[in-house]
Amino acid sequence: MYNKDAFDSYLKQHHDRFVDEFAQFIAVPSVAADGRGIQPMADLLAERFRKLGARVTQYPLPGGSPVVYAELDGSSNSTMLIYNHYDVQPEVPLNLWDSDPFKLTIKDGVMYGRGTSDDKGELLSRIQAVEAWLQTQGPLPCNIKWVAEGEEEISSINLPAWTEAHRDMLKADGVLWEGGGYDTLGRPTMAAGCKGIAYFELHADGAKMDLHSSVAPRVPNPAWRLVWALSTLKNEHDQITIDGYMDQVAPVSASLAAAINALPTDGYAPELEMWGLSGWLNGMDDVAAQLRSYTEPTVTICGIETGYTGKGSKTVLPAHAYAKVDCRLVPDLTVATAQKLIREHLDRRGFTDIELRLIGGEEPADSPMGSRIQQAAVTACHETFGKEPLIYPRFAGSGPMYPLSTMLNIPVISAGATWHPNARAHSPNENIFVKDYVDSMRFTASLLSHFGA
Amino acid sequence: MYNKDAFDSYLKQHHDRFVDEFAQFIAVPSVAADGRGIQPMADLLAERFRKLGARVTQYPLPGGSPVVYAELDGSSNSTMLIYNHYDVQPEVPLNLWDSDPFKLTIKDGVMYGRGTSDDKGELLSRIQAVEAWLQTQGPLPCNIKWVAEGEEEISSINLPAWTEAHRDMLKADGVLWEGGGYDTLGRPTMAAGCKGIAYFELHADGAKMDLHSSVAPRVPNPAWRLVWALSTLKNEHDQITIDGYMDQVAPVSASLAAAINALPTDGYAPELEMWGLSGWLNGMDDVAAQLRSYTEPTVTICGIETGYTGKGSKTVLPAHAYAKVDCRLVPDLTVATAQKLIREHLDRRGFTDIELRLIGGEEPADSPMGSRIQQAAVTACHETFGKEPLIYPRFAGSGPMYPLSTMLNIPVISAGATWHPNARAHSPNENIFVKDYVDSMRFTASLLSHFGA
Repeated sequence: MYNKDAFDSYLKQHHDRFVDEFAQFIAVPSVAADGRGIQPMADLLAERFRKLGARVTQYPLPGGSPVVYAELDGSSNSTMLIYNHYDVQPEVPLNLWDSDPFKLTIKDGVMYGRGTSDDKGELLSRIQAVEAWLQTQGPLPCNIKWVAEGEEEISSINLPAWTEAHRDMLKADGVLWEGGGYDTLGRPTMAAGCKGIAYFELHADGAKMDLHSSVAPRVPNPAWRLVWALSTLKNEHDQITIDGYMDQVAPVSASLAAAINALPTDGYAPELEMWGLSGWLNGMDDVAAQLRSYTEPTVTICGIETGYTGKGSKTVLPAHAYAKVDCRLVPDLTVATAQKLIREHLDRRGFTDIELRLIGGEEPADSPMGSRIQQAAVTACHETFGKEPLIYPRFAGSGPMYPLSTMLNIPVISAGATWHPNARAHSPNENIFVKDYVDSMRFTASLLSHFGA
Repeated sequence: MYNKDAFDSYLKQHHDRFVDEFAQFIAVPSVAADGRGIQPMADLLAERFRKLGARVTQYPLPGGSPVVYAELDGSSNSTMLIYNHYDVQPEVPLNLWDSDPFKLTIKDGVMYGRGTSDDKGELLSRIQAVEAWLQTQGPLPCNIKWVAEGEEEISSINLPAWTEAHRDMLKADGVLWEGGGYDTLGRPTMAAGCKGIAYFELHADGAKMDLHSSVAPRVPNPAWRLVWALSTLKNEHDQITIDGYMDQVAPVSASLAAAINALPTDGYAPELEMWGLSGWLNGMDDVAAQLRSYTEPTVTICGIETGYTGKGSKTVLPAHAYAKVDCRLVPDLTVATAQKLIREHLDRRGFTDIELRLIGGEEPADSPMGSRIQQAAVTACHETFGKEPLIYPRFAGSGPMYPLSTMLNIPVISAGATWHPNARAHSPNENIFVKDYVDSMRFTASLLSHFGA
């Protein structure tokens, strides 16, 4: 146990400084997709860790975004590995933001800015929680090894190799993951695994320049080639039609289905309302939508660009067309298999002209339910929020859990409660509630106390 | 006949001023797609017509681009209707231009800039030819009625109604059209008709904001909806599969096929080379490619935009997707029929969610071969270039020939020789040869003399 009153008083006393620090974090445009602001953000973060008294090392990676690694000693032999990331998604489309994405803007108890939710709010509030602990409680109840990477938003392309090279250094008894949140009805959510992802670009080339569209009867159009190729990957019933793709998916075990079906679906209707949708895909009910969300792989068009897309009519036959496609993976579908199957599928249908580029990939990862870190998180959740959490066997999203949990054989739990249902991660007007930011510090302290006990 | 030496001397003497005037025309960004610079260009053009001594009227149209109409009296009862346009295509993508698109840039005998070829070079050189005639020969050999519109690049949406309202005013014995050019082997080309066009946008909507792509198993993706809908319009053999579309196409008459097949195809191989292509669509030979170019309708994807298309990976499920599609029409496929057939085709396949917007349309137009204006153009071609022209029954492109020729029942010929095979109309680095610009004035004088005789 720890002195909560002293801890909470410290948070109140230092609230304004904590928010100022948050504004400094948001102000750095650490967009991994184009590398802007990555090194300044890594430096700012390393400095913040040092202020805790941590041993901090920046590990340069081939992609240019270093891993910022910090170690803090505790008073027990238990070690918690904490994972967060300091990079953010691109801020486009800028015109849909109501405020500057890189200026922390507070309105009606909500803090807006790129990275407020994903993942700078969670990262910094945990750091500030450690500061408050050290200042009010004395030594930490467990050792902390903190991995903060800068390539999460581009599929953590270099993290598996880095992890492999630092297996001994990273030994721990449990991993605290990012992405802790709550659902539309305010119930804290946790996850013990995640889907994998393979992110592709498909490119089609035509003439070496855009041509007047009057030549269409005789000149190949890469936009059509791309549309035809894409249309073979998934049909209008949203069934993936890539040869052999679904064959790789391991049957959903009875225990997995039971764990998912046991989860409430009363948060789904509010999501429909919030997103302006009249129903789920193919008219699925909430139960079917939930089971599908956690058990099925996906093939998603994230973007397409070709030819003229401005105002009015430009009669052009494009020289080039490309699409961005992400494939969320479930066991036993791996990144390499997905890539191989799509390539072969396209070739078999005569689309040898379509170039398939793998931009990033992460393997799917499941970890055991009921682990020690999970139990500590549940207790901390009760203590902090007075609520029973919903525990998802896996995220519908992806992250580098595979290297840091599966590869190292350490159970993982995503927990905390900073990600709310309208947080707009990856979208304009990304945000976090001020109250949730503060509660994240209280949850972190509670978790440390129970995990170290 | 006319005094060619005096005419040519005048051109030489005033060459620098003519080029300065051309630079002024190019400097005005008269992009019809977004309306930039349209009125300043109309004013500049009206003023230039007035300097010839013409009666000039600007007719405002609902779209905001006025018709600039000019009349000049001649010494005979013959009247030539001349058609040109003062609007230009958008200049994007800007990064592929080697010079400022709106600054006339002369290098190695070539003049670069948006509109140099399409269609300011042809328009202004004809005006300057009339000036040179009036200054060196006296009265014009025929009356001239000049229609210069500012919406050609957005399918002349208001010209049919304007023409209908001014039928009496526009009476003439022949129409001189824009777009006179020559092929890769330097042979002047003419055309007595053109294809029509229906320009559409297809829109698909999903959630009211871009979402994290992890929701893909349950949220409809408008990018997929669009791809699936598009893929039903044309198959991988480039056959149009819109229900009933090809049934509307009138059989190719023996005389039309003969006129097209009589045209040489030795200009086709150089085009392949210039465009960086290894062959025509579906491996067609030049003869088949030529026949198809002039007789078949098209369905062309001109552009697609959805989701994230920047650098790297952004895992997003788009809120919206749209495509621009142009359909080149041949008799008896009309704009309204094309629209109706596509709408019904999509509905029949469950794509009632895809919005189909008609952005602009022009009907196909054929006019008789061997007309008086055509014969005068052939004679002028021999006199100016010493070459036999290739006469195409119709353009593979489109233009508002239907209102000004078919509706008014006046034979039309596209002639002159300013459009060369690498002119890059609608593309970056659009250009015209200085020599062709000057020859256009000489051709115009010769045509006036033979048409008025």
